[in-house]
Amino acid sequence: MLNLLAFDAGGTSTRAVILDTAGNCLGYGKAGGGNPVSSGFPAAIGSLRDALEAAGARLGPASADYSSAVIAMAGSSVQTSTRLLAKSLTDLGLRGNVVIEADLLATFFSGTFHEKGYALVAGTGSVGAQIRAGRLDVVADGMGWLLGDAGSGFWIGRRVVRAVTAALDRRGPQTSLTPLLLAALGIDSESPARFQGRPAAAQQMIDALYALRPVELSRFAPLAFEAARTAPAPDEVAQQILDRAAASLSATLAAVLDPSIPGPVVFGGSILSTDSPLAQSVQRSLAGTALECTEVIRVADGVVGAAVLALRHAGVVVDAAVFSRIRATLADLRGT
Amino acid sequence: MLNLLAFDAGGTSTRAVILDTAGNCLGYGKAGGGNPVSSGFPAAIGSLRDALEAAGARLGPASADYSSAVIAMAGSSVQTSTRLLAKSLTDLGLRGNVVIEADLLATFFSGTFHEKGYALVAGTGSVGAQIRAGRLDVVADGMGWLLGDAGSGFWIGRRVVRAVTAALDRRGPQTSLTPLLLAALGIDSESPARFQGRPAAAQQMIDALYALRPVELSRFAPLAFEAARTAPAPDEVAQQILDRAAASLSATLAAVLDPSIPGPVVFGGSILSTDSPLAQSVQRSLAGTALECTEVIRVADGVVGAAVLALRHAGVVVDAAVFSRIRATLADLRGT
Repeated sequence: MLNLLAFDAGGTSTRAVILDTAGNCLGYGKAGGGNPVSSGFPAAIGSLRDALEAAGARLGPASADYSSAVIAMAGSSVQTSTRLLAKSLTDLGLRGNVVIEADLLATFFSGTFHEKGYALVAGTGSVGAQIRAGRLDVVADGMGWLLGDAGSGFWIGRRVVRAVTAALDRRGPQTSLTPLLLAALGIDSESPARFQGRPAAAQQMIDALYALRPVELSRFAPLAFEAARTAPAPDEVAQQILDRAAASLSATLAAVLDPSIPGPVVFGGSILSTDSPLAQSVQRSLAGTALECTEVIRVADGVVGAAVLALRHAGVVVDAAVFSRIRATLADLRGT
Repeated sequence: MLNLLAFDAGGTSTRAVILDTAGNCLGYGKAGGGNPVSSGFPAAIGSLRDALEAAGARLGPASADYSSAVIAMAGSSVQTSTRLLAKSLTDLGLRGNVVIEADLLATFFSGTFHEKGYALVAGTGSVGAQIRAGRLDVVADGMGWLLGDAGSGFWIGRRVVRAVTAALDRRGPQTSLTPLLLAALGIDSESPARFQGRPAAAQQMIDALYALRPVELSRFAPLAFEAARTAPAPDEVAQQILDRAAASLSATLAAVLDPSIPGPVVFGGSILSTDSPLAQSVQRSLAGTALECTEVIRVADGVVGAAVLALRHAGVVVDAAVFSRIRATLADLRGT
């Protein structure tokens, strides 16, 4: 049988895996953003091709024939033409079709081979899902920066910025987020100058931040984590932002829980994939529910899950043995 | 002496007043949006000219010579070229220069002729100011929808929408805002259909609301007021949104208070210009401050203040008598 292709196409990076139908990962490559919505179609195609070429680099041309491809990407991109994507990959060896899967499902299958359970992802955005029969059955949030994404990187970053604007004009409490944010923006906080009744630093912040796309406020989320762990005392404003983020993410997870599905729970995305106090707090919110004793698995990205989905679409049953094989051979290729 | 021109140029409508130097308003006209930032420069110029032509319609050509013009518009537009604006108005009779003033200052002078006091405006955005010597001395908020505008129409509308998205996927409490918003968007809330794990109504909301410009969420602010006064019991979610809006606006006002300036306080903008429970709550926040007994004046727009500013720029002292004359003659022209 021909080999399979699996892509984990995110907004900032794209990962490609070449694997055989036994779950052995043979090639791995990485490139830039591969989401057509955020990068545009030509750039996204370019990233998919770059990642695939990198993945195939150490394989001989003999193995450069693939029966099908799975591309995991953000849910809103699912309307993308799979035919166009398949056509763009034929000269790199794709013989069959392309299937697009939600990145949320790839995150889930990066943590487990079970067909039932839950995924909770908080990166720039945030979304929770109940998985049943290997499909997304119930989804909560994932509504985007304007309407939802509660507890996400954008959500935290926006609150960081608003806490600082409020502190600058004395509507809100002083916070150690102010010097952190002004430094991140290269603004001199000591200037006593005023502009139209405002501190000059506030006016410069307005100019700098409205030049960004709204979702880019997510880049300031790390400042909340930094201020909340700063000695001697954590910053109360930052701590409150993180507490509310944890409560919001807990509510998203609670909204998809079903006592008949005991788990596992997979956490993904930059906000939840590390063992931070915030991630621990969301995990503790399962106490007192039917999932009190369930396993919580943290994953760094969705690439293992994209490989699992490629196998499932090829009719391969992914059991514990196949799943460990994918993880072990991929870890070798990634050098982790 | 030649007559003067005064414009109150807002995002959705522009008002022009022709007045003499004694404060007698001789002509009044209204046209579309006149803010170059939101409407574009050519459209804004068109609105200023339309409003002026309407104002001059009942006056003979003999009075169609104006020594100068004041245009009150949102603070962020103050960079607009006054020379270009003056040039565009010369063929309609302007002989002198154009001065641009902040709409916030025009709101203040719509309520009082005093040179010291406070203005608090909450329409689509929100901003507070301390006025001293007839100028904006300290400004709080007015940071725009992404970074500030706490308690504004956008702020309330965004929370209405987010409360509904949370209720739809069970992350948040049920609220009577849901049927109100779905009806406003023409979405069938009863459909049991699901789309990618979500209720179909939620997906339709996402599609409808991301098609708007973010600030347009302000159009849903009235739903909070409606739900909060619905019999038999006010909606708790809506009431909480309005309570927090009142607290935010109170904080903006508190940030500009100075015990040495006893008032008056002028409230403007659609959220504060009526005698709503929210406006009363912000007014009550002055209890216990040095402004406990100060007068709070509500104004519907900034047109009186634009006339006051036109007189002040012409060197006329606007006292109680001149101020009442402006108000009385303008009320006659407006038929109010």
